[in-house]
Amino acid sequence: MTKSVDFYFDFGSPATFLAYTQIGKIAERTGAEINWKPMLLGGVFKATGNASPVLIPAKGRWMGRDLSRWAKHYGTEIRYPAGFPLNTLPLMRGAIGYLREDEAQFHKYVSMIFHAIWHNEVDVRDQDRFGALLVEHGFDPGAFLMMIADQEVKDDLMKRTEEAVENGIFGAPSFMIDGVLHFGQDRLDWVERALQD
Amino acid sequence: MTKSVDFYFDFGSPATFLAYTQIGKIAERTGAEINWKPMLLGGVFKATGNASPVLIPAKGRWMGRDLSRWAKHYGTEIRYPAGFPLNTLPLMRGAIGYLREDEAQFHKYVSMIFHAIWHNEVDVRDQDRFGALLVEHGFDPGAFLMMIADQEVKDDLMKRTEEAVENGIFGAPSFMIDGVLHFGQDRLDWVERALQD
Repeated sequence: MTKSVDFYFDFGSPATFLAYTQIGKIAERTGAEINWKPMLLGGVFKATGNASPVLIPAKGRWMGRDLSRWAKHYGTEIRYPAGFPLNTLPLMRGAIGYLREDEAQFHKYVSMIFHAIWHNEVDVRDQDRFGALLVEHGFDPGAFLMMIADQEVKDDLMKRTEEAVENGIFGAPSFMIDGVLHFGQDRLDWVERALQD
Repeated sequence: MTKSVDFYFDFGSPATFLAYTQIGKIAERTGAEINWKPMLLGGVFKATGNASPVLIPAKGRWMGRDLSRWAKHYGTEIRYPAGFPLNTLPLMRGAIGYLREDEAQFHKYVSMIFHAIWHNEVDVRDQDRFGALLVEHGFDPGAFLMMIADQEVKDDLMKRTEEAVENGIFGAPSFMIDGVLHFGQDRLDWVERALQD
């Protein structure tokens, strides 16, 4: 039987970007399926009483260096965007919208946004540059704006965020395999072992 | 040149117990020296604004299971003691006292306390049982009480806790190698690699 992993993500988390760069390779190596679980991390924090680790200055300093070490270990890099922590609400609504519409579009969008933010390709807060990014990747900015303003899309993100919390999620990235939660990009070895079992 | 790792610990942290079960083996494999750094984790939390992860219920539930998985991975086990989180102030004063007096006594004491707590051998809050534990391991309970009441020992623990914070420590276990901080028992692979470099 094919195993699957629920991958809970929000674009605003640097550790989640690192996990994103690896989860596809892990799925390939193990033959597992990925269930993509967009959620609003800010909503998860609020519901669980959790908070970003960077709010503890000493922890934030360590974490920045730690994530750089992991990025190098994975053969990638990570650059904090201007304006971090970002408000990812419109971006996550976009993920929901494409997930509902078209799987190929969804994957293209997720890759585009993660790299725009964490390789500093584009300041996603800049409406003009963000629009140009969409066009460059074959998306229609007008249709995008309509999509993320759709009440069903907005409600779906809220519903998925609530479901994440109900499933025990308190942060990102999170991985659920056979009802077992693994939290953090530093648990990818455990995720891979669980998918091999 | 022999490398060394500063190992910051407090008996009250389950992740630190797991790290304790491994750090000696890592030092043996790499030929590194361990600098033992007792500190009061509660004091570190207070100074840095950090807090125990178990205060977030969903995180605490995941962490309990996560640490059990790691314990099994290391070939040991972990059992939360009655009264967790414990007040480790007298226990950490004991670590300081023996560290100042006698290295062999220090190591015997540290091993005794970690196992008493995390293998639930003794409820360390029970004065009679704690006294019996000391006697069983060849310590003099009267001398122990005198030692932990010594103002120099008390001040030394405070001083070492402040120094830990000045060195960027915000939690336990923490490892400092060549001025680089690694945080968490889940960074022991990084610690070992750093000691091999």
